[in-house]
Amino acid sequence: MKLVGVIGAGACTQEIYEKSRRVGQGIAGLGATLVCGGLGGVMEGACRGAQERGGITVGIVPGPDRKEANPYVTIPIATDMGHARNILVVRTSDVLVAVSGGYGTLSEISIALKLGKPVVGLDTWKQMHGIRYVETVDDAIRAVEAFLPER
Amino acid sequence: MKLVGVIGAGACTQEIYEKSRRVGQGIAGLGATLVCGGLGGVMEGACRGAQERGGITVGIVPGPDRKEANPYVTIPIATDMGHARNILVVRTSDVLVAVSGGYGTLSEISIALKLGKPVVGLDTWKQMHGIRYVETVDDAIRAVEAFLPER
Amino acid sequence: MKLVGVIGAGACTQEIYEKSRRVGQGIAGLGATLVCGGLGGVMEGACRGAQERGGITVGIVPGPDRKEANPYVTIPIATDMGHARNILVVRTSDVLVAVSGGYGTLSEISIALKLGKPVVGLDTWKQMHGIRYVETVDDAIRAVEAFLPER
Amino acid sequence: MKLVGVIGAGACTQEIYEKSRRVGQGIAGLGATLVCGGLGGVMEGACRGAQERGGITVGIVPGPDRKEANPYVTIPIATDMGHARNILVVRTSDVLVAVSGGYGTLSEISIALKLGKPVVGLDTWKQMHGIRYVETVDDAIRAVEAFLPER
Repeated sequence: MKLVGVIGAGACTQEIYEKSRRVGQGIAGLGATLVCGGLGGVMEGACRGAQERGGITVGIVPGPDRKEANPYVTIPIATDMGHARNILVVRTSDVLVAVSGGYGTLSEISIALKLGKPVVGLDTWKQMHGIRYVETVDDAIRAVEAFLPER
Repeated sequence: MKLVGVIGAGACTQEIYEKSRRVGQGIAGLGATLVCGGLGGVMEGACRGAQERGGITVGIVPGPDRKEANPYVTIPIATDMGHARNILVVRTSDVLVAVSGGYGTLSEISIALKLGKPVVGLDTWKQMHGIRYVETVDDAIRAVEAFLPER
Repeated sequence: MKLVGVIGAGACTQEIYEKSRRVGQGIAGLGATLVCGGLGGVMEGACRGAQERGGITVGIVPGPDRKEANPYVTIPIATDMGHARNILVVRTSDVLVAVSGGYGTLSEISIALKLGKPVVGLDTWKQMHGIRYVETVDDAIRAVEAFLPER
Repeated sequence: MKLVGVIGAGACTQEIYEKSRRVGQGIAGLGATLVCGGLGGVMEGACRGAQERGGITVGIVPGPDRKEANPYVTIPIATDMGHARNILVVRTSDVLVAVSGGYGTLSEISIALKLGKPVVGLDTWKQMHGIRYVETVDDAIRAVEAFLPER
C-alpha cells in the first residue's frame, strides 16, 4: 500500500484545478492511493484525476458529516476536528504533493517537514527549506515515485 | 458508498474472533466498506472476513504510524490521537456493529447513540437502551442491512 | 496541583444543578482545580459552586470559540474537536465525579475506566463495574479526597 | 479574561530562553493568562517569566500525561493528540507571540493566520505576510496589548 497526500487550497483557479487533476492522474498511475482533506479546489481536482485513472481516493474532511466530501472521494472519513484533521492527512501519507495553497496548506507542509515526510512543491509556498520544488506535473510525479517506499 | 463500523475488543477469544470474521464477511456481502479502529481482536477478525469476500476495509489507528494497522486493513489512517480516534470511527460509519468489547467499545457505543447512529449489538454490553441486540451473526447482518441508507 | 473532573449532562433539573454546585464547592474546598467540558447544566453548576468557594475552573469546550464556555469558567480552552474534547477532560483529571448524565457522560466514564482513572458516581449510570457509587454530595467529596494523590 | 499564546521551539539557546522569559513577564504584566504547548525551551521560559510576575500559565501538552508539562505551568491540559494540540493553543488565544521556532511553530503561525488571529513575531520565521514583526520584547508586549480585546 502506497499512500500519497495532496494538499492545496480549497478554492483555486481553473489552471491550478487542471494541474491538480493531472497530479491525481499521475498518482493513480503509480498505483498509489491518494489522500487529501476531501474538500474542493486542489483536493477535488486531484481526486477527480485519480478516479479517472481508476485510483482510490481518501478524503479526511474537517466537519462532522462525510457528505462534505467532494464527489470524487472514494473513502470519506468524517472527523469533526476542524484543522486538526490536517495532521491525519500528513500522518497517513508516505509523501505529500503541495499544489498552490494558503495558510492551511502551509500548516500541513510544516507538520510534514516536522515529521520528516517528503514534500514535493508545485506553485506553492516559496523558499521553504525541505520542500523538493518542481516545475511541472510530470516532474512532480517523478519526484513522488522516487520518494515512495519499495513495498 | 455504504460504510459499516465494527467495534469491539482489541484482544478476544477465538470464538469471538471467528464471529467477527463472519460479521466482516457479511458486511462485504452487502457491498459495504468496513470501518474500524484498525487493531487486533474483533477489528482484525472483521477486516479479515471482509477481505475474504472482496470487501474494502478502513482502519483508523490510534498511534502515529499506519503500520500499526492489522494486516487485513486495506486503507489505514494514522491519527496519533489515541482514544479520540474512536469518534472518527463512529462519525464515518452509517451503522455500527458492536461485538463483545470492554470500556473502549462502550465509549464508542455511547458516542454512536449520542449521535443517533444505529448500533447492532452481538455479545456486547447488556441492557443499553438504544442498542439493537441480536443473537446470531446472520441476524446482525440483516439488522445492518435494514439500517443502511438506500443510496 | 490537584485536578478533579466533573462530568454530567449539559442540561439538567434544578435539583441536579444544585447538587453539582455543591460538588463544585466541595472540590474547591479540597484546594483542587475543577476541570469540565465547560458547557451548561452539571458543568455550569459545578463551576459556579467552585468559584463561590474561590476555586479555579477549567472548561474544555467542544466548539471553536471559548466564548461558548459558561460564565463560571475561569480558564476556557477552545478545541473545535466536538466530542473528542471529552478525552481531554478525562486525561487532565486525577479523579472524576459523574453527576447524572446521558450518553456523552457515559463515553467519558468509559474512557476514564479504560485509563484506570477513579470515577465517583452520584445519580449517574447504574451498575458500572469500576464506578465508586455514593449517595450524597458529602460522600462524593470524601471519596474524591481519598482518591487524590498526596502531592 | 485575556489569553495570550506563546509559541516557539521546545529547545532553544539561553538568549532566546531569556527573551521568552521577559515575554512571559510582560504578558503577566498586562493581566493576561499565558497559553502555550507546555513543554521546554521558549514555552518554559515564557511560563517561568509569567509566574515570576504572578501570572497564570496554561500548558496544553501533546502527550497523554500532564506531568509532561514544564514546572512553570499552573494549569496543565493533557491531550494525547500530538501536534493536533497546536490547534488548541491557537484557538484558545486572543493573540499569539512567536519567538524563534521551527516547523512546529510555523504550523501554529499558519493556523493562527488562517483563523485571523493576530501574531506578533520576534526572531521568528521571516517575511510572512500577516505577522506583526517586532525587534524587542518591549515592542512585542506593546503590540500584544494593542491587539488584546477591551473586555
